[in-house]
Amino acid sequence: MDEFSFIRSIRPNTYRQPTLIKGIDDDAAVFRPMGQDVVTAVDTMVEGVHFSKETMEAADVGYRALAANLSDLAAMGSRPAFYLVSLVVPDDWSQEELDQLYKGMGELADSYHMDLIGGDTVGGQELCVSVTVFGYVTKDMARYRSAAVPGDVVFVTGSLGDSRAGLACLFDQKEETEDSLYLIGRHRRPSPRVAFADAIGACERVALNDVSDGIANEANEIAESSDVDLVLDVDALPFSKAIQALYPEKMKEWMLSGGEDFELIGTVSESEWAVVQEAASQTGVPITRIGKVTEKKKNHPSVYIVEEGVQKLLEKTGYTHMKRG
Amino acid sequence: MDEFSFIRSIRPNTYRQPTLIKGIDDDAAVFRPMGQDVVTAVDTMVEGVHFSKETMEAADVGYRALAANLSDLAAMGSRPAFYLVSLVVPDDWSQEELDQLYKGMGELADSYHMDLIGGDTVGGQELCVSVTVFGYVTKDMARYRSAAVPGDVVFVTGSLGDSRAGLACLFDQKEETEDSLYLIGRHRRPSPRVAFADAIGACERVALNDVSDGIANEANEIAESSDVDLVLDVDALPFSKAIQALYPEKMKEWMLSGGEDFELIGTVSESEWAVVQEAASQTGVPITRIGKVTEKKKNHPSVYIVEEGVQKLLEKTGYTHMKRG
Repeated sequence: MDEFSFIRSIRPNTYRQPTLIKGIDDDAAVFRPMGQDVVTAVDTMVEGVHFSKETMEAADVGYRALAANLSDLAAMGSRPAFYLVSLVVPDDWSQEELDQLYKGMGELADSYHMDLIGGDTVGGQELCVSVTVFGYVTKDMARYRSAAVPGDVVFVTGSLGDSRAGLACLFDQKEETEDSLYLIGRHRRPSPRVAFADAIGACERVALNDVSDGIANEANEIAESSDVDLVLDVDALPFSKAIQALYPEKMKEWMLSGGEDFELIGTVSESEWAVVQEAASQTGVPITRIGKVTEKKKNHPSVYIVEEGVQKLLEKTGYTHMKRG
Repeated sequence: MDEFSFIRSIRPNTYRQPTLIKGIDDDAAVFRPMGQDVVTAVDTMVEGVHFSKETMEAADVGYRALAANLSDLAAMGSRPAFYLVSLVVPDDWSQEELDQLYKGMGELADSYHMDLIGGDTVGGQELCVSVTVFGYVTKDMARYRSAAVPGDVVFVTGSLGDSRAGLACLFDQKEETEDSLYLIGRHRRPSPRVAFADAIGACERVALNDVSDGIANEANEIAESSDVDLVLDVDALPFSKAIQALYPEKMKEWMLSGGEDFELIGTVSESEWAVVQEAASQTGVPITRIGKVTEKKKNHPSVYIVEEGVQKLLEKTGYTHMKRG
């Protein structure tokens, strides 16, 4: 199949977003934002680096590539609208597998009424999936990492470390149980917290960041951008019963720095914390209060984690060490 | 250098587009279109497929990757505003080379006051540069391939086949002359026709397509989208003195299907043809009338080319054959 026929085969029959003017049909796509701000991000997955055919089916690759992007949109408080897909395709990927990859993306896109509006497909040695997403957010209501202020509650959605544990289940060829299947599902088909991020739209001020590289990294990003300290309680960090059952010795490390959970970490004032809890409840998203924001104690903004009554510095990598001074 | 430090190193110190709200600083970028339509496209270049270190320096790779995208924006009549860059980087690309790649992109971006607003950098086996561009166009004034109507003049900017001839100069290790350097320059650093496309903004109706795969392909795309025939005059097709001097025997083939010239092919009514000529003159872009649009003669829209008084069918691939019936 030549590129032209392929593009035709993936072209949607109808578009769903009312602001779309021109989809896959010309040199570029055209849309008309109706007084809202536009949010955009790109994310790339490479075979052999982010996934392999041993750990993921083609449909999962597509699903996860889009999910990672939707998580970025959620972390901005933005509603997904469109996506562009750029594929580098090696010879050992069949047309059938590419169809499945698009189908996996399409499943997730359908649930948000997103439209595929363009892309590019070229040959290469290894499969690369690069997705650009577009979302809308009410004017001046995008959620930034820089919005945290001392006194804020720190919260996180869902549970941490599951994606890394799911990958371990695949590598370790764990027996298929409810627990292992749950963790593998979290690895292959993460749930971006789009509905929750939309539901907290009424909050006046929220800092948000998505947990793509591990909460230790993301908490530090909020601290740096907002020029504050974050103090987390290790006992409060949420985990699934599955990770506890299968990887009790690894779970702490993976919760802090496992990455790719695509949960949201955020901060909000005490007075609006109830609004956030209500939004989580309405959207069926577990939410946990895991710490607080404080004035920075040193020159450099930092994240501390309290373990057995002792406050330790939490580095981006997830490494902790005893606080000095 | 880790990814974070790298992102910091390429982050612009200041942004130039007044509609940008948030650049490279968070999970995604945010911009606020002021009543204009947004145009977006993605284009990917892969080492070993689209270029090699033998034929292009790192800065040229960056320049050309962005130029290809700007050509898509020009073909929509859109003014460039922002770009996102996704890079897959193999071990044999040094930090210095990556800096040069961004610098090459930056040179072109500067001339249009574009802002780099985000991206993603991951490891891989071969260098892939995927650029997503964003432009603005006045409401309902995007230029589509589907806008051609019978009676229109068909025109093309610049000269055809130069990029392919430039690549040949590199492969053939042609002696460095004014001609060979000109062609190599056209291959490495094509000039997207952004200013010209903007200058014809006053035209009521123009069909536009950019010449990325060869004019035979692009003319057929206009014919199909507009459901008309295009009749081109082979003697009218514009070529440089350099291609004529160095590749006289190959030039016809390369003019029709060489690709990557990033010129614009378009159609406009006879009454507005003078406006297009004036815009070309004002922006210093050579323009040539190369044919006309007619009602389709068969069931399927087609492109014909007149050679020595004989009308032949011109296929997408550039292959011509005698017209039957």
